[in-house]
Amino acid sequence: MNAEDMIMISVDDHVVEPPGLFDQHIPARYREAAPKIVKTEDGSDVWTFGGSVIPNIGLNAVAGRPKEEYGIEPTSFDEIRPGTYDIHERIKDMSAGGILASMNFPSFPGFSGRLFAASADKDLAMAVLRAYNDWHIDEWAGTYPGRIIPMALPVLWDAEECAREVRRVAAKGCHSLTFTENPAKLGYPSFHSDHWDPLWRAVCDENVVVSIHLGSSGQLSVTAADAPIDVMITLQPMNICQAAADLLWSRVIKNFPDIKIALSEGGTGWIPYFLDRLDRTYDMHHLWTGQDFGGKLPSEVFREHFLTCFIADPVGIALRNLIGLDNIAWECDYPHSDSSWPHAPEELAAVARDIPDAELSKITYENAVRWYSFDPFQHRTREQSTVGALRAEVGDHDVSIRARDTGRLQRSVGMELGKLAEMSTA
Amino acid sequence: MNAEDMIMISVDDHVVEPPGLFDQHIPARYREAAPKIVKTEDGSDVWTFGGSVIPNIGLNAVAGRPKEEYGIEPTSFDEIRPGTYDIHERIKDMSAGGILASMNFPSFPGFSGRLFAASADKDLAMAVLRAYNDWHIDEWAGTYPGRIIPMALPVLWDAEECAREVRRVAAKGCHSLTFTENPAKLGYPSFHSDHWDPLWRAVCDENVVVSIHLGSSGQLSVTAADAPIDVMITLQPMNICQAAADLLWSRVIKNFPDIKIALSEGGTGWIPYFLDRLDRTYDMHHLWTGQDFGGKLPSEVFREHFLTCFIADPVGIALRNLIGLDNIAWECDYPHSDSSWPHAPEELAAVARDIPDAELSKITYENAVRWYSFDPFQHRTREQSTVGALRAEVGDHDVSIRARDTGRLQRSVGMELGKLAEMSTA
Repeated sequence: MNAEDMIMISVDDHVVEPPGLFDQHIPARYREAAPKIVKTEDGSDVWTFGGSVIPNIGLNAVAGRPKEEYGIEPTSFDEIRPGTYDIHERIKDMSAGGILASMNFPSFPGFSGRLFAASADKDLAMAVLRAYNDWHIDEWAGTYPGRIIPMALPVLWDAEECAREVRRVAAKGCHSLTFTENPAKLGYPSFHSDHWDPLWRAVCDENVVVSIHLGSSGQLSVTAADAPIDVMITLQPMNICQAAADLLWSRVIKNFPDIKIALSEGGTGWIPYFLDRLDRTYDMHHLWTGQDFGGKLPSEVFREHFLTCFIADPVGIALRNLIGLDNIAWECDYPHSDSSWPHAPEELAAVARDIPDAELSKITYENAVRWYSFDPFQHRTREQSTVGALRAEVGDHDVSIRARDTGRLQRSVGMELGKLAEMSTA
Repeated sequence: MNAEDMIMISVDDHVVEPPGLFDQHIPARYREAAPKIVKTEDGSDVWTFGGSVIPNIGLNAVAGRPKEEYGIEPTSFDEIRPGTYDIHERIKDMSAGGILASMNFPSFPGFSGRLFAASADKDLAMAVLRAYNDWHIDEWAGTYPGRIIPMALPVLWDAEECAREVRRVAAKGCHSLTFTENPAKLGYPSFHSDHWDPLWRAVCDENVVVSIHLGSSGQLSVTAADAPIDVMITLQPMNICQAAADLLWSRVIKNFPDIKIALSEGGTGWIPYFLDRLDRTYDMHHLWTGQDFGGKLPSEVFREHFLTCFIADPVGIALRNLIGLDNIAWECDYPHSDSSWPHAPEELAAVARDIPDAELSKITYENAVRWYSFDPFQHRTREQSTVGALRAEVGDHDVSIRARDTGRLQRSVGMELGKLAEMSTA
């Protein structure tokens, strides 16, 4: 298929939260204590909440930058692309990149809202979390209907409250919950306890996908304190196989047959090997470990419950039938450094040139529409939704940006990984 | 190719060290302090050394057992197959399984000799380690020339001594060193320091392969304390990608262009995705991280330095050209629970039925011969080396075993993972 003819929905992008996020959504009595943007002495913009300080990291908002300028230093809003935090600019960037719709993971609260969970004042935390979700659903996603797949943060500290919040946001049309890849690593009960059952019941009842982003256990793949950062960047996606194995063999899958889980930013090329490994583990060991999927193989169970995604993964595309044609979605990862925005459609078209159109359409948008109960075609026709049509709408929107102060944003080779691990929410 | 016509060399099997190992090899003054087998009150045989007690784990010697009897309890020599610890029986088991030659990783000392390294008396540790290597090379491998690829343990606590030991064993024809997948996790300097340079110089000079077995950083893939053991079994092989990434981006590869590394028991189906990920990481990030392979891509560098292996990996076989036909060897994993001994040739032949004979021969033996500088054909002709010829030699050797006391060895579902992690050397 020609890049211009494709329809593209990305199931993994990121929002850099704008100042004023909470203004319209938090009750007045919590306004003072809610998270706030503060300008630091070195000119960076940081979020502050209850004593925590969370910088924006350069590498998390490099969309449009020359690669020489990638880096992991803290940054300020006037140094990053407005499309990262301004919904009107974001929609223009999406159109310029040929992207019909996009699901946006949070930045400063952490992928599972750890920042809010850390607050000792749980009433405040709950008010902040609800305000965040309302902002995300009503304002960020609501301003341009059919362009943003709404996503909610979980109540990490209370499974019952979390279930209630899931039901509350589902009533507003939100069918995606961002969650941690491993609650045990964050100090909560694991996927193997019954602690989370109220939540699993709610997501099944409300048809909400549990979207698990890589890195959401708060643990980066750091092999050694002095390892080059390239090691961590290489290993990040495959590490999500830990979450996949943890959930696949857990009681969650067995007790909640309707549960749907997305492995976000995890890539796909490793999945066929992983499925073989699951089946071999079952074959060699289930007689003494007692695993039982009612006669099904683990690989079949995986395909019933897991959505995977890729940016442009030649191995995953070649092996798409071994993964499951209904189990692969596309992601752009805007504005992170893995993204090839605004040329992602051309990149994918080149890699997928041998795929039949019907199969490619499943990957680029149909699976996303179905898994996330999200229908963009209520708002525009398919003809208005192609890469070419969207680009024509936005005209000559500028997709380039040079750093205003390259001195601040050049290289970061000397910065040790330990600091990155503490700083990064990814 | 028919299973009976294949020639099979396994680059990953395991020896369960027999009592009396040190008798002929340790200087008299260290005999009393050397590791010893002790019978415990519950009837298990355990190794003891300097206050440490290391049991044999049932799951590490299940060859020939019905799968219902797999388990992770400690065991005794009279409950496990003699081929695990007796070289004469091992050779018969190899022949019955159609295996021409085999490389055997250590059991009780740990994959990188951590048990010896833990000794406060370094003279004793060195004597024990040299005795172990002499036993392995001269007695275990030497009794049946051309059947066992000799392998040496490293001097983990002293890089200069380690280099000297590599040169000493290489002079005896040993071209494989078992090493840890991550020295940093064991408390030693990482692959990114210059600490190990004397060792890397020695392995390059002596044409010795650094054989890195999964699990050799002493860390199992435990997602949560209450996770089913199936999670860990599933994840073990892929975790070696951490070692591959750590070494690939390290100064070792750049400063020692002749170094050869084997990823043992790591499987292969994930490698094509991993190589794509390496190249994408390089493409997106090298301008700011400063990585430089002299114009080569990381995937090319990988193929120059890394040997992979599989038991029977359908995805790896399908993608063999993306991995590198010269970079794949075969393994049996006798007597561990992943092994399909004695039917491994039939299992591989079924999975590899569409591969041209010349390609399959590279995988089943030619790559092992070349990488490990090991020539079994000095001792027998190719015609005498096939699966069929070896099986004919050994006649009706009994390949079945039932546990004498199934009550001790049945199920282990209730045993928590934490204990396994401490007990297991794998």
